[in-house]
Amino acid sequence: MARTESRAGGAGGGPRRRADAERSIEAILDAAQAGLADHPQLTMAELARAAGVGRVTLYTHFASREAVLGAVLERAVDEASAAIEAAAPREGSAAEALDRLVRTSWRVLDRHRRLFAVAHAELPPADMRRHHERALAHVEQLIERGRDEGDFRSDLPTTWLLSAVYSLMHAAAEDVNSGQLTAEQAPEVLVAMILPAVRGR
Amino acid sequence: MARTESRAGGAGGGPRRRADAERSIEAILDAAQAGLADHPQLTMAELARAAGVGRVTLYTHFASREAVLGAVLERAVDEASAAIEAAAPREGSAAEALDRLVRTSWRVLDRHRRLFAVAHAELPPADMRRHHERALAHVEQLIERGRDEGDFRSDLPTTWLLSAVYSLMHAAAEDVNSGQLTAEQAPEVLVAMILPAVRGR
Repeated sequence: MARTESRAGGAGGGPRRRADAERSIEAILDAAQAGLADHPQLTMAELARAAGVGRVTLYTHFASREAVLGAVLERAVDEASAAIEAAAPREGSAAEALDRLVRTSWRVLDRHRRLFAVAHAELPPADMRRHHERALAHVEQLIERGRDEGDFRSDLPTTWLLSAVYSLMHAAAEDVNSGQLTAEQAPEVLVAMILPAVRGR
Repeated sequence: MARTESRAGGAGGGPRRRADAERSIEAILDAAQAGLADHPQLTMAELARAAGVGRVTLYTHFASREAVLGAVLERAVDEASAAIEAAAPREGSAAEALDRLVRTSWRVLDRHRRLFAVAHAELPPADMRRHHERALAHVEQLIERGRDEGDFRSDLPTTWLLSAVYSLMHAAAEDVNSGQLTAEQAPEVLVAMILPAVRGR
């Protein structure tokens, strides 16, 4: 995703320049991911220093702090998406698959909890949802399957079930950030709440 | 709450000056509530104009846009809190009371949906939760009662049940803002989801 948001490899850039650009982008995203977790106010100047690139290079790839945040978030969601695929959401009963999917997504969300808190505070809710689309598509397919198989409730719109799962996952992340839940409790309370909410019983 | 956040009626202010100050504060909060709903970027200068007060008066009462936003939010939550009290959360079974409480809170949340979206985007989650405390205290008491009476689940921490109710209510408001739900559907889908989530069946 960084690739489409960046201006790397444009006209006049040969393979060597393109490879340099991709290395810079990865360095920027790695530095932003680590930096934002400890220091949510991270500025573009601090980010350039931490990534070991010049400010011109940074701004060549990312026009703003918000663009960096969006790209780091997108990378974290890609990681969640890959983890969900690995958890085989199409296998077993829909309820069992949802249990696995919640636990798997939680592990990725937990790794990026601080980053998600910064993104949540700075990006509009519609942008947050858009960045999550790839991961949410798996949940949506699973909800549809659960409804077709009669395992999940069909009295509520799928979009709402999806919003509920999404908001509960992020509520648990906030509760861990604020010390109201431990990171170990979170997947247990999530599964215990999401399953009856989605099954309606 | 505006009163405690304002510096009105300080040393040297007689009853007349205090009354003037309170009128200014009400005018500022009314203008902010109406203005932010239509124009989330509302500046302090625009707010002073809309409220019909000078910029010095505005800054005397509120040091920043964030202070205004906090005070408007607090007033909306007070309104929710009063509506919840009027819905008699201590009467009937806990499940019936929670049904009433969700519908009543939704009506207030729906009236202030745009304001909550602005506050959600601009205030840190911990501040948002703090501003909601008075309304959430009613939900907490009701959850405790439901657990004592064996009607609500007792396998999950009360703080988590509270976070879940809070985040689902705000998820529904976001879905109405984005057009995924209608304002009429929202209380129905909320009750249909929150009850099994809190009862665990």
